[in-house]
Amino acid sequence: MNTFGKAFRITTFGESHGRAIGVTIDGCPAGVPFDLEYIQKELDRRKPGQSKITTQRKEADSVEVLSGVFEEVTTGTPIALLIWNQDQRSKDYSHIKDVFRPSHADYTYHTKYGVRDYRGGGRSSARETAARVAAGAVAKLFLKSLGIDFHAYVSEVGDVRVSDDYSTFDFDEIEKNIVRCPDPVKAEQMIELIDGVRKDRDTIGGIVSCVISGVPAGLGEPVFDRLNAELGKAMLSINACKGFEYGSGFEGTKLRGSTHNDAFYTDESGKVRTKTNLSGGIQGGISNGEDIYFRTAFKPVATIMVDQDSIDKEGNAATVSGKGRHDPCVVPRAVPIVEAMSALTIADMVVRSNGNRLDQFKK
Amino acid sequence: MNTFGKAFRITTFGESHGRAIGVTIDGCPAGVPFDLEYIQKELDRRKPGQSKITTQRKEADSVEVLSGVFEEVTTGTPIALLIWNQDQRSKDYSHIKDVFRPSHADYTYHTKYGVRDYRGGGRSSARETAARVAAGAVAKLFLKSLGIDFHAYVSEVGDVRVSDDYSTFDFDEIEKNIVRCPDPVKAEQMIELIDGVRKDRDTIGGIVSCVISGVPAGLGEPVFDRLNAELGKAMLSINACKGFEYGSGFEGTKLRGSTHNDAFYTDESGKVRTKTNLSGGIQGGISNGEDIYFRTAFKPVATIMVDQDSIDKEGNAATVSGKGRHDPCVVPRAVPIVEAMSALTIADMVVRSNGNRLDQFKK
Amino acid sequence: MNTFGKAFRITTFGESHGRAIGVTIDGCPAGVPFDLEYIQKELDRRKPGQSKITTQRKEADSVEVLSGVFEEVTTGTPIALLIWNQDQRSKDYSHIKDVFRPSHADYTYHTKYGVRDYRGGGRSSARETAARVAAGAVAKLFLKSLGIDFHAYVSEVGDVRVSDDYSTFDFDEIEKNIVRCPDPVKAEQMIELIDGVRKDRDTIGGIVSCVISGVPAGLGEPVFDRLNAELGKAMLSINACKGFEYGSGFEGTKLRGSTHNDAFYTDESGKVRTKTNLSGGIQGGISNGEDIYFRTAFKPVATIMVDQDSIDKEGNAATVSGKGRHDPCVVPRAVPIVEAMSALTIADMVVRSNGNRLDQFKK
Amino acid sequence: MNTFGKAFRITTFGESHGRAIGVTIDGCPAGVPFDLEYIQKELDRRKPGQSKITTQRKEADSVEVLSGVFEEVTTGTPIALLIWNQDQRSKDYSHIKDVFRPSHADYTYHTKYGVRDYRGGGRSSARETAARVAAGAVAKLFLKSLGIDFHAYVSEVGDVRVSDDYSTFDFDEIEKNIVRCPDPVKAEQMIELIDGVRKDRDTIGGIVSCVISGVPAGLGEPVFDRLNAELGKAMLSINACKGFEYGSGFEGTKLRGSTHNDAFYTDESGKVRTKTNLSGGIQGGISNGEDIYFRTAFKPVATIMVDQDSIDKEGNAATVSGKGRHDPCVVPRAVPIVEAMSALTIADMVVRSNGNRLDQFKK
Repeated sequence: MNTFGKAFRITTFGESHGRAIGVTIDGCPAGVPFDLEYIQKELDRRKPGQSKITTQRKEADSVEVLSGVFEEVTTGTPIALLIWNQDQRSKDYSHIKDVFRPSHADYTYHTKYGVRDYRGGGRSSARETAARVAAGAVAKLFLKSLGIDFHAYVSEVGDVRVSDDYSTFDFDEIEKNIVRCPDPVKAEQMIELIDGVRKDRDTIGGIVSCVISGVPAGLGEPVFDRLNAELGKAMLSINACKGFEYGSGFEGTKLRGSTHNDAFYTDESGKVRTKTNLSGGIQGGISNGEDIYFRTAFKPVATIMVDQDSIDKEGNAATVSGKGRHDPCVVPRAVPIVEAMSALTIADMVVRSNGNRLDQFKK
Repeated sequence: MNTFGKAFRITTFGESHGRAIGVTIDGCPAGVPFDLEYIQKELDRRKPGQSKITTQRKEADSVEVLSGVFEEVTTGTPIALLIWNQDQRSKDYSHIKDVFRPSHADYTYHTKYGVRDYRGGGRSSARETAARVAAGAVAKLFLKSLGIDFHAYVSEVGDVRVSDDYSTFDFDEIEKNIVRCPDPVKAEQMIELIDGVRKDRDTIGGIVSCVISGVPAGLGEPVFDRLNAELGKAMLSINACKGFEYGSGFEGTKLRGSTHNDAFYTDESGKVRTKTNLSGGIQGGISNGEDIYFRTAFKPVATIMVDQDSIDKEGNAATVSGKGRHDPCVVPRAVPIVEAMSALTIADMVVRSNGNRLDQFKK
Repeated sequence: MNTFGKAFRITTFGESHGRAIGVTIDGCPAGVPFDLEYIQKELDRRKPGQSKITTQRKEADSVEVLSGVFEEVTTGTPIALLIWNQDQRSKDYSHIKDVFRPSHADYTYHTKYGVRDYRGGGRSSARETAARVAAGAVAKLFLKSLGIDFHAYVSEVGDVRVSDDYSTFDFDEIEKNIVRCPDPVKAEQMIELIDGVRKDRDTIGGIVSCVISGVPAGLGEPVFDRLNAELGKAMLSINACKGFEYGSGFEGTKLRGSTHNDAFYTDESGKVRTKTNLSGGIQGGISNGEDIYFRTAFKPVATIMVDQDSIDKEGNAATVSGKGRHDPCVVPRAVPIVEAMSALTIADMVVRSNGNRLDQFKK
Repeated sequence: MNTFGKAFRITTFGESHGRAIGVTIDGCPAGVPFDLEYIQKELDRRKPGQSKITTQRKEADSVEVLSGVFEEVTTGTPIALLIWNQDQRSKDYSHIKDVFRPSHADYTYHTKYGVRDYRGGGRSSARETAARVAAGAVAKLFLKSLGIDFHAYVSEVGDVRVSDDYSTFDFDEIEKNIVRCPDPVKAEQMIELIDGVRKDRDTIGGIVSCVISGVPAGLGEPVFDRLNAELGKAMLSINACKGFEYGSGFEGTKLRGSTHNDAFYTDESGKVRTKTNLSGGIQGGISNGEDIYFRTAFKPVATIMVDQDSIDKEGNAATVSGKGRHDPCVVPRAVPIVEAMSALTIADMVVRSNGNRLDQFKK
């Protein structure tokens, strides 16, 4: 289904070249200060045409609010956000009407539904993520008032990789370069690498890391809806995402328990802390009050500007020719999407966890 | 919540040292041949005390069926499976009544609920996964009749790693060695490595890979409930799982699109296939008919047989001493759990996808 | 939450005097012929200003489709329908900004959320039902192709009541009079009665009955999601609905089992039938192939054109004066809403019931 | 599905003549004092064989707790309750193996699933409600600590009907007579009436009313999950329930708005009250702090001790002969079930409503 979350819950709709895309947010608590400008700014971070290393398509992605807000606060009723589609060069897509693009969703949607809106990938287009970013911005507004913050950034492109120790970064650097990397030196190398790939009419993947700070201990549900499981699902639901790991992740499997365990201590302020954070802020599926830290893998964009072998609807051999305007590397624009999906996951857990204990209810 | 799945849906219950653990399966179609012996066999693959490289605890894990089966077929009503707890050396755990074990769920459960059953980790114990394996066996029985099969195996422990090309394996080898690795030579190396770790009173992690064959094209939902996202959530909900990747995964991010794309072709039988399978059988979140392939990372078991620094409930420094009988490496016993969660995910998607198209309904 | 249904699922949004109201339909099978004109016609049956016995407010209620439809069939992706708000005489409502109207939702929303859009009742306004009628029309289009039809009608207003034996009616009469009663003589009496109430500046309630034909045997779920329970919830979710009964209903409680039981027989065509239908087409929560028959009670509209005692936000005594343009009796306009909610309930059950049995899955 | 509730959620399992029936309660807050004796007492109110006007079957219905409770409080993890089946005279049912009993669920289950456990009605047996009563008792324990109480009673059997003004009753009278009617005089008449019906080897229906006191204002969700809609669904999910009305119900439709509206006032303690309660404690689907009041209709039990015409599986005419031991009137034993389903509905709403407003979250 096109719904994410159980208590703070969004439902998105819209195709790449339909009339509009949008989202309904249900379960946002009443009384959250609503800031449409902030939501628009988040959308601007995702929109196409930002720099030389993103697609040159221009889309304004102006967001409107249709409901759920009154006198500039949320009312507890559904918040509907709408983004009209523009710059729809639908004719660009006539060549793929009957042909399946390799490693796209053309064939699988066709098989599942028997019919599909082929223009720009229709529902399977990454354009859908604009609705997520808009909803995620509302989640961020809610969580900001609880002291929870999100910092995603590009940590790896090709053979360029930043330090795993994010405490060495100034997160304010992230938005200062077009690749959204907190290490200015590595940023330059990444940009150069991506620009080279672009000139080859090819594409490349990359990795987005994310740090969530200010999450109180106690979020997450046993046993299936672990915080890490919900975060993983959220990330893996993003177009082109191929992997998720948190804390020590895949590399940590090689460690021994004696090295891997995070020892508890009480800091000067009396707060329970851990000396290391290989757990990535989550133990037993529940947050422990440390930073939540995870990494997500994005594959190279499937649309490339060269001819490829494929088949048509009837199963006959066919050629897909490279057309349109596409990203040489998706990760710079994936950064706000990773933050949005993180915020939606945490917001859902915050609302869900509000009734865990009898003492949370008024008598 | 303690429920997994939407249409084929399970709810588990039970603590490590309570009276029993169990599971209710709701939404299993009527008419599936029920085979209690097969379910028991699957449980035997997960149970403790199987070999020198697993915990030496002995638990029979005998499963009973309480409902939902009549004259040896499923009836469409909830199937309740029960496993009584035995060999509960509860006294083993008195030493952790007031102390939080590092990298366990003691602290986070305590913070979330204010109260916890500390015996053996209570609800957070991996014992809960026995209920999943039992339910997963029912899902496998359902899917076997549709031609869908599951093969998980240990692919990496420490620096021992098998080939990424699983087509070179004979899956029948998996159950022939105690580490559950399809490469007999690597299996011996893994066993030796784990046994060394055990002698050090330490633990180590590892990686479980999984191949699902026979999945028809068209399973998975846009845009949040992608098949890869649901599989990822399923795996990340398993105790100690720290990462998930499918198809080309994290490594694939370094490739270029021109190399990464899976070209379509039609085989002699007229079936649509892809020449490569870097997509791991899933495109746009929907199965494409190729094998589904993914890898999951398991951290080293947190319980080690040495003393560790920690704190108690009041925040005072305390020592956790290593006691009890635990696994030096969790991956051999994780294999049937990975298969079970895969089967539950696919079963859910099969039932959910049965009404995608008007032509699937009788007129 | 603002979502109805599990498999064929709608989410509505919008306040009476916000920018727009709308609905997202998720889970509608692909391939259903889409007919925007039909949807508009259904909305016209609900819209204000139709006749002398409905409110004199004029609202065009023009519906737009934003997504989920391509080349005039549904694509299986979310169908978003939008109705812009117009004729918003918001100033009409300033007098209730700080005062709670008796038997409205002003006080309860205020208590629940701490903030509310008071204009026209905001989210609690019956205007929200326009979104349901639009979505219900899509459900009807889906079900019409399976041979399922809906006929709701006004069966009782004040002391005017039609026969309980609906087989004596010509359902084509329903839309021929402004009160939507299939008995032309009783229709005239009802209209006269309502018009008298209107002249008294008062309001009155009534009863809407509904017959659903063509439902195959086997719809409905044990044990909580019985078809009658879901239909009851659907009806009781409509503004002003105070009661629901199906088959023999409240009166049937006085009968004896020997009279009440519906004897089975096989008709000439070999179809299983019952001689009577006191069960209202549902046995054990599952449809039995007979007509589904139920009745719903609607209270008198709470907005009356006279002054009433109440309190303000601070708890001080206050007077609510009768203003605006409202319905003297809600049942004529409730008829399409009852049909819409019935269609949404049945559509959900049809999709949900498609995987009950192993033989419904391809091997 | 066999699940009720979204946040405080139960899943029941079990057939009438299977090994056991039971329920898993998920989402019960941690810290609720657990009282197994109280749960057993509630079950005793529902059990067969209580008096001359209930079935003479004897079932102990002893409940066991398997999980979710530690040191006599709930832990926030799933609470599993189990009731073993006994006194299973399965041979009593061989005569209905191939024949459909009129107005039972035999035919509809057979059609839906193709296979059914015919013994005692299998899953469709009212025996399943024992699991609901057990779960409802846990919900009551939770709500009792918040000051919320439940009083259901038999208000009508045949032509014997108690006053609609429940304030004239002493609720302590309810359990003092075997029909569970708070009016001792009417109770005698009802008992006599039911006993006469029993002697005729026939059955009769009746009405159960329910008063819920202590519910704070603000429970219930817009727009589909109204408190009245969820209560209605809960009641209509009980076996043999044919109707639900709250507040003024069906009779109220005949009133005029000027009479029907409940005027607000502030009482001496400063609490907002209404002068009348035709709203039944719910306005706009949300509780207003007054008593919640509703009535539910139960049809005559379908099992009668006389021969009836029917058909067999092949559609051939057949006779169903009256056998077994059954209730002449279901309402006395329905009283605790109505209370249980009410408590489960309110508990769910209490947990769900805990995050409606930003000020309910800690900063």
